[in-house]
Amino acid sequence: MAKKLVSVLRGTPSWPPPLWLMRQAGRYLPEYRALRARAGDFITLCTTPDLAVEATLQPVRRFGMDGAILFSDILILPWALGYGLRFAEGEGPVLPRLQPEDIARLDLDRLEPALAPVQEAIARLRVGLDGDAALIGFAGAPFTVACYMIEGGGSKDHARTRAMAYRQPRDFEHLLAVLTEATITSLSLQIAAGAEAVMLFDSWAGVLSPSLFRRFVANPAARIKAALGERFPEIPVIGFPRLAGGLLGVYAEISGVDAVGMDTATDPALTAALVAAPVALQGNLDPVALLAGGAAMTAEVARILGALRGRAHVFNLGHGILPETPPAHVAELIALVRGAGEAA
Amino acid sequence: MAKKLVSVLRGTPSWPPPLWLMRQAGRYLPEYRALRARAGDFITLCTTPDLAVEATLQPVRRFGMDGAILFSDILILPWALGYGLRFAEGEGPVLPRLQPEDIARLDLDRLEPALAPVQEAIARLRVGLDGDAALIGFAGAPFTVACYMIEGGGSKDHARTRAMAYRQPRDFEHLLAVLTEATITSLSLQIAAGAEAVMLFDSWAGVLSPSLFRRFVANPAARIKAALGERFPEIPVIGFPRLAGGLLGVYAEISGVDAVGMDTATDPALTAALVAAPVALQGNLDPVALLAGGAAMTAEVARILGALRGRAHVFNLGHGILPETPPAHVAELIALVRGAGEAA
Repeated sequence: MAKKLVSVLRGTPSWPPPLWLMRQAGRYLPEYRALRARAGDFITLCTTPDLAVEATLQPVRRFGMDGAILFSDILILPWALGYGLRFAEGEGPVLPRLQPEDIARLDLDRLEPALAPVQEAIARLRVGLDGDAALIGFAGAPFTVACYMIEGGGSKDHARTRAMAYRQPRDFEHLLAVLTEATITSLSLQIAAGAEAVMLFDSWAGVLSPSLFRRFVANPAARIKAALGERFPEIPVIGFPRLAGGLLGVYAEISGVDAVGMDTATDPALTAALVAAPVALQGNLDPVALLAGGAAMTAEVARILGALRGRAHVFNLGHGILPETPPAHVAELIALVRGAGEAA
Repeated sequence: MAKKLVSVLRGTPSWPPPLWLMRQAGRYLPEYRALRARAGDFITLCTTPDLAVEATLQPVRRFGMDGAILFSDILILPWALGYGLRFAEGEGPVLPRLQPEDIARLDLDRLEPALAPVQEAIARLRVGLDGDAALIGFAGAPFTVACYMIEGGGSKDHARTRAMAYRQPRDFEHLLAVLTEATITSLSLQIAAGAEAVMLFDSWAGVLSPSLFRRFVANPAARIKAALGERFPEIPVIGFPRLAGGLLGVYAEISGVDAVGMDTATDPALTAALVAAPVALQGNLDPVALLAGGAAMTAEVARILGALRGRAHVFNLGHGILPETPPAHVAELIALVRGAGEAA
């Protein structure tokens, strides 16, 4: 029988909804901070099986979420493609700024050996994960990966990336096509090693005009879903085009993903009308409401649960847990969501 | 007879649509850079009638837009309320971080004398503006002004502001109520001096959960529209809750504004279905498409015009003009939009 999280992601409602939290392995946990200090740099943490396994399991061991997401980062893909990457202390990821001639040098053959430690981590996680928690594979979506490569790191408005999309559409299409193939490979390896669902993080989808959104966010997701669906029809794909707001219906329709992630600003009731069942919805408590806790959090949780009752829904945050969040609030949140099931 | 821009904002479609551009007075213009250098600091530029008039008129003189927006800034309101503000070279606005006890010190009586130079600029603009260009008044919306005050400047995620909204909802409501009253006063003064429409910029509306969006973005806009509508029923109010995406329909319904601004990521066709006529729609060419120019810009313009034909539509950007934009592209854009009228 499928685990509860997987069955909901495939479209069967369940009450109370299963729950996991974006960035549930992270700096708000003292045991994570200790592990991070031991690992030294962030890439080592993601690509050393022992460490990645431990980071993935820490929150599930403490809180018993219904899902464990592979501890990874959006930039592991360019790293595995041989694209120079380092995490500078206090300034986030630093990459070379992509030039069109760099695209031909991205090496798809390098992927499988480079990602071998990730596969090993996943295989060990399937053994180490207790009971009903499902293992979720991780990938940055092609557009967001392209943003980091073109901007050479984070950016306020991603103007370089968008300028390339308008001015050099062929180079841009080519880059996205390479990254789409690489994402299919990476997720196929994760599924082959034991991932029971996968999630595609498109953090910067919201900076695009609606026409570019269709071409560079929804279309690559459609290719990824189609390719994975052929080989692994039983594995649900969650697409998370952050800040896509009113375009979530268009995204679900074009991409064919099994579940759509909603960010903090998204209205669950309106989204339930835009995205046709049986596509599942995931989200979307404001991480700041989790940080605040108390009555404000209780009210927001009740609103989200109420809006999606009867729908295939995976409870989650609308964005990653903030580092300053008290771990006790996470326990309180899980009790609230599970308590809703007992109350009703 | 009402000017074309005003009549469209009040709900009467016109083809081709009237046009103006957010941040049309700005660093992409050499004459603006010269004026800015002459003014010294940014507050002086906004609050010296000669300089504010000149900055407002420069783009209209060069390109003949259908609207001229008062040259101002979101932070002029806290400045006029006596809240310490300075623009630091290269780091944007710097303000003290608001503490709850600061709210009582915001001085509504100070507004009218502090804003007298702005009123004078508007009166002169009505004389200086040629022909059909309409004069648009300017205000930051209460939530966005509150963000700058609470964060002490710009912010990536506005976590302090959102934490205050959840944890100290009474203080937050009180701050928003004071800023709402101040905004009503500021816009009333601008209209009394000659503004023919007004626009409310809520740049950070998209960081809120849907419930906070209703309370702190849509409700204050409703109070502002109601108060202005009572005194100045013929003056249209444009509301621009940036990144509100799928919530634009909710915003239009709750706020009662005459026109809704669409940011770059918003789909015009979907928004036309969400926001019932006769509410006008304004926007939303990607400023990066304007920067790129050429075929990409032509295609995006055609898409937007096509999606909104038959609807009351004011052509604009989805965000402010980027400083590196070639002025020739602005001329090209205006010719494109006006040429659509001749072609059809």
